[in-house]
Amino acid sequence: MILVMKPQVSEDSLNSLVGEIEKAGLNTHISKGEEVTIVGLVGDKTKIDLTAIEAHPAVDKVIPVTESYKLANKKFHPEPSGFAVKDTFIGPDTMTIMSGPCAVESEEQLLCIARAVKAQGATILRGGAYKPRTSPYSFQGLEEDGLRYMQTASKETGLATICEVTSAHAVASAYKYVDMLQIGARNMQNFELLKEVGKTDMPVLLKRGLSATIDEWLNAAEYIMVGGNTKVALCERGIRTYETATRNTLDLSAVCVLKERTHLPVIVDPSHATGVRSYVEPLAKAAIACGADGLMIEVHNDPAHALSDGPQSLDFDQFASVMTNLKPYITLANRKLS
Amino acid sequence: MILVMKPQVSEDSLNSLVGEIEKAGLNTHISKGEEVTIVGLVGDKTKIDLTAIEAHPAVDKVIPVTESYKLANKKFHPEPSGFAVKDTFIGPDTMTIMSGPCAVESEEQLLCIARAVKAQGATILRGGAYKPRTSPYSFQGLEEDGLRYMQTASKETGLATICEVTSAHAVASAYKYVDMLQIGARNMQNFELLKEVGKTDMPVLLKRGLSATIDEWLNAAEYIMVGGNTKVALCERGIRTYETATRNTLDLSAVCVLKERTHLPVIVDPSHATGVRSYVEPLAKAAIACGADGLMIEVHNDPAHALSDGPQSLDFDQFASVMTNLKPYITLANRKLS
Amino acid sequence: MILVMKPQVSEDSLNSLVGEIEKAGLNTHISKGEEVTIVGLVGDKTKIDLTAIEAHPAVDKVIPVTESYKLANKKFHPEPSGFAVKDTFIGPDTMTIMSGPCAVESEEQLLCIARAVKAQGATILRGGAYKPRTSPYSFQGLEEDGLRYMQTASKETGLATICEVTSAHAVASAYKYVDMLQIGARNMQNFELLKEVGKTDMPVLLKRGLSATIDEWLNAAEYIMVGGNTKVALCERGIRTYETATRNTLDLSAVCVLKERTHLPVIVDPSHATGVRSYVEPLAKAAIACGADGLMIEVHNDPAHALSDGPQSLDFDQFASVMTNLKPYITLANRKLS
Amino acid sequence: MILVMKPQVSEDSLNSLVGEIEKAGLNTHISKGEEVTIVGLVGDKTKIDLTAIEAHPAVDKVIPVTESYKLANKKFHPEPSGFAVKDTFIGPDTMTIMSGPCAVESEEQLLCIARAVKAQGATILRGGAYKPRTSPYSFQGLEEDGLRYMQTASKETGLATICEVTSAHAVASAYKYVDMLQIGARNMQNFELLKEVGKTDMPVLLKRGLSATIDEWLNAAEYIMVGGNTKVALCERGIRTYETATRNTLDLSAVCVLKERTHLPVIVDPSHATGVRSYVEPLAKAAIACGADGLMIEVHNDPAHALSDGPQSLDFDQFASVMTNLKPYITLANRKLS
Repeated sequence: MILVMKPQVSEDSLNSLVGEIEKAGLNTHISKGEEVTIVGLVGDKTKIDLTAIEAHPAVDKVIPVTESYKLANKKFHPEPSGFAVKDTFIGPDTMTIMSGPCAVESEEQLLCIARAVKAQGATILRGGAYKPRTSPYSFQGLEEDGLRYMQTASKETGLATICEVTSAHAVASAYKYVDMLQIGARNMQNFELLKEVGKTDMPVLLKRGLSATIDEWLNAAEYIMVGGNTKVALCERGIRTYETATRNTLDLSAVCVLKERTHLPVIVDPSHATGVRSYVEPLAKAAIACGADGLMIEVHNDPAHALSDGPQSLDFDQFASVMTNLKPYITLANRKLS
Repeated sequence: MILVMKPQVSEDSLNSLVGEIEKAGLNTHISKGEEVTIVGLVGDKTKIDLTAIEAHPAVDKVIPVTESYKLANKKFHPEPSGFAVKDTFIGPDTMTIMSGPCAVESEEQLLCIARAVKAQGATILRGGAYKPRTSPYSFQGLEEDGLRYMQTASKETGLATICEVTSAHAVASAYKYVDMLQIGARNMQNFELLKEVGKTDMPVLLKRGLSATIDEWLNAAEYIMVGGNTKVALCERGIRTYETATRNTLDLSAVCVLKERTHLPVIVDPSHATGVRSYVEPLAKAAIACGADGLMIEVHNDPAHALSDGPQSLDFDQFASVMTNLKPYITLANRKLS
Repeated sequence: MILVMKPQVSEDSLNSLVGEIEKAGLNTHISKGEEVTIVGLVGDKTKIDLTAIEAHPAVDKVIPVTESYKLANKKFHPEPSGFAVKDTFIGPDTMTIMSGPCAVESEEQLLCIARAVKAQGATILRGGAYKPRTSPYSFQGLEEDGLRYMQTASKETGLATICEVTSAHAVASAYKYVDMLQIGARNMQNFELLKEVGKTDMPVLLKRGLSATIDEWLNAAEYIMVGGNTKVALCERGIRTYETATRNTLDLSAVCVLKERTHLPVIVDPSHATGVRSYVEPLAKAAIACGADGLMIEVHNDPAHALSDGPQSLDFDQFASVMTNLKPYITLANRKLS
Repeated sequence: MILVMKPQVSEDSLNSLVGEIEKAGLNTHISKGEEVTIVGLVGDKTKIDLTAIEAHPAVDKVIPVTESYKLANKKFHPEPSGFAVKDTFIGPDTMTIMSGPCAVESEEQLLCIARAVKAQGATILRGGAYKPRTSPYSFQGLEEDGLRYMQTASKETGLATICEVTSAHAVASAYKYVDMLQIGARNMQNFELLKEVGKTDMPVLLKRGLSATIDEWLNAAEYIMVGGNTKVALCERGIRTYETATRNTLDLSAVCVLKERTHLPVIVDPSHATGVRSYVEPLAKAAIACGADGLMIEVHNDPAHALSDGPQSLDFDQFASVMTNLKPYITLANRKLS
């Protein structure tokens, strides 16, 4: 950690600060410039109180030089990690396709979609049973019934299943029925929920918050991992910017940044990122091309009558066509459909 | 609601869409322009499936013309609302000052701060017992012990108290000890939590999400109100932008927008918005000047050693000076310290 | 255009507004809903004064339904356009590689880089002679000398050349020496400059403004085209967001949006978008995969000693490796190096 | 300047870097931490090539500790600066009101507005003769005719005048007719234009760019000042964010930040920031309350028929009422109408 001192800080003030820091067992290196003085801190920073340092009258700013996340950090785990979800695998050699409806609407609908996406190469069935909706008057999901239909679809097709969870109660329910838990964008910093899923042994897909920085996102992953659950994949789903031509702005450079900073697998969701059906295929190709480990794509048997997010869902023919067109990109990326 | 049709939509496609809508009991008005055709929908929109309409192949875009929040909407409740919190009041004629430390650290600390803020005119003591922190390795709050200290401080000083809640469990605990519940920015769209506080009869302070639009924020308030709890105040605490000179960008125009759209009271938090102690006074004045009903200001007995958010906290002398300087602005705004 | 009237607008006020509009030769369609009344306008909107309508006391909001750009609009020019730049071509069947240093530093340097990028398949040499720099104390470019070196490099290698122009004076100079003019992000809404390049017959690369919407960008292209110069290509170079992990946030979904809205070719610049050398290759692949017509990639003979933007420049070996790795993606996209 | 080295950088690589830096005449201070090594640079940084350092293979990141602007920097000019504009003054003791129409439409209109705003206490007449408009098909201003009307209005009323300039040509024209030049948001980083106005001796109002950071803005001011013209005032007019409830997001905390970083006066423009007439008064009060030195407020004789920006303009009665309501805030801020 580096402390930039205020200009014209007195010798006394500087010495008193340095004394406090060294008393805590850290070493300091002082660089006096013509314009500013800098103090480098060496040693175990958990021994000192960062905010006390920040508020010290002699300190202008504190510049951290190392990341606060450790378990998710590539520096300490240089090899890319991966994990099984039921019979499929998310990791560096595979391209995992997670597909299904935004919301589970009925058992028949879900089964019909499950068969269709499996036929095209998807290995994880997605489907929302608890839907976080902006307005309380919108459809909120089938809850436990929806989870049961997911289990049925899994038994019938062999697909693994993933469901969003929005409360400790939903975690307990979903754990009984599905194979992977999803934390949605709006809950990325719902730390109580992160701790809940961190106590389970079930794989977790952690979506990026609407305006979360990559560092905040990795710290959110750390909340899960520190609880003992290291089976975490990250899902880029677009960030909020001033641009309204797409629902969110898909940040594919985040895939590149994540590949440098963390060993965790990265999934891209072009459906939610753009909100526009016709942009799913080109951006899915782009995601594979820049290093993603998997894709989340919304598919619906009848998008024109979907209860949620119809405009971005592909119908079965469109999904089949997209999957056909993605295959050479998957091959080029040296991956296999998992 | 207005439907803008795709250019060159066929007569058949248009008629089929209109037929479906009218079957659902709504009326339509069709305007054929030289470039586009528009369909206006009149009647109870809850009878139709909005997303089905959006996904209809003939439809280019759907433009809502009315807001999805009703209980929070000024159109239907033109008078500004207000409510009591213990012996104080938040509403159109008062200026409510909520002050205290970011995090409760000990009983002694809290009592000492409580006395100091009361002496200057604050009527609600703030203090975090459950702290949502970006890193799992940061101080997470004293939890139920912190709540107990809040209760003690309230008994000793007569101040009302407010605490952030981060889970259903925390709501149940806080309800026993404090007078007002706070939903933090990171949980503004934690809809399960909103529903929990909506079931209580306790006043709620709903902070704006890091990048929440005003409409999303009012819909979040609606989640609480639809549960039966209408004692909701909104707290502007800065939004996330590209600018890094301040921690967040305080959006004071949001106060003006809220005053047009909702009857709910509006509190401004310049401490969290800027993260810089010296900006608290000028922005507190500005908040009063543009119509805020209250202020949340962080005060600490020893900011240089605060466990959380030291750089933005005022010490007792600074707070006394700020309060003195705010008073003429409060008078000018035709308000009284509550 | 659609006018949403204020709630409770009087019959008289509505009639007076409609009268004014119809007097101007437009037709109106009125839809009275239970909550709001909507007026659709049909006919030539240039006959009325939009801002007068917006400010009319009966009007709540005006919703445009058609775009203000015409020449750049795909609706009126459905086929993708393209144009020659010296002996190369930018358009739907080619992948145009524009490479070179951020700033021209000397004749020797430029020649050496020109030969290297040509050897790998680039057909347009980029190099800045007028550098818009945030600080007045930074290197500002070699100006006309730099342009002369560009001409020499072009003669020696046969490459076409592109230079940024920052004033009417620079346009006049550059026109004499290079083959394509670049409008930089900071000047995207320097309308006087757009008009200047619109008067020439030279191809123009229009970079997206730091926080320009796609519609503003297409309107900026319209400024050039309305002057008679239709040889415009658009360059996505990242937008400004809250995320600081990359210099800007590369918005690849903009490529998809542009492909729907305009016939103009689209170039992607992963070097400036990210500011990080190692992200150039994966994002260049992604750009090709989602439909870009070309790439702008910074290459330098000695990035560690570049006068400008060193950290994002590739050296010759890195560029050779990137080009080798891009080729299968170019083939997959059914394009050829131009 | 601080260099954070890459982890596991070799002793040789470090020594070679340090050697290069010291050869350039700077001193270095090396701090070796357990996780990273840091090199502090002391001395005249203009002697070294910053980008070469950034691109050095041993360097992870470069952290500047001092600002690149000098003339605008409060550290070197601690007293707030001010300057006369014709017979009025912009500076620390005055509240300068700049009012008038967005665009000059005719001589009669301008005279009529000039008299009205003067009567209420405005001392500078604003009015656009060169209008930068998003679409080339929108009204572009009366150009030199508009400037002439400004001069007439000034002669008649004694008001000082300000006009936006958009090119070197416009600077030359405006210099003949008006008293202050305005650089608009879209041209804040049109460095050629900044250099042009820097060569004159006329006061300049520099509006903040649509998404300019405060540091970029102060560097833009530096471009003007380094040319010899130190009569620069900064105008906050809202920044671009994801929020669409107001046209831009007025960043009043920027006023506080500027007051700490620069001695230059700060003007706030609530009209352009919000685009909504009814928000002008509350935000004007807020601007005064947090330290602004002046306000720019749009006034029009007939806002419903204004050629540009009607919805945000005040009519004469509204402006009179706003000015009356602002007066106690001006007094409270210890300022006088200039």
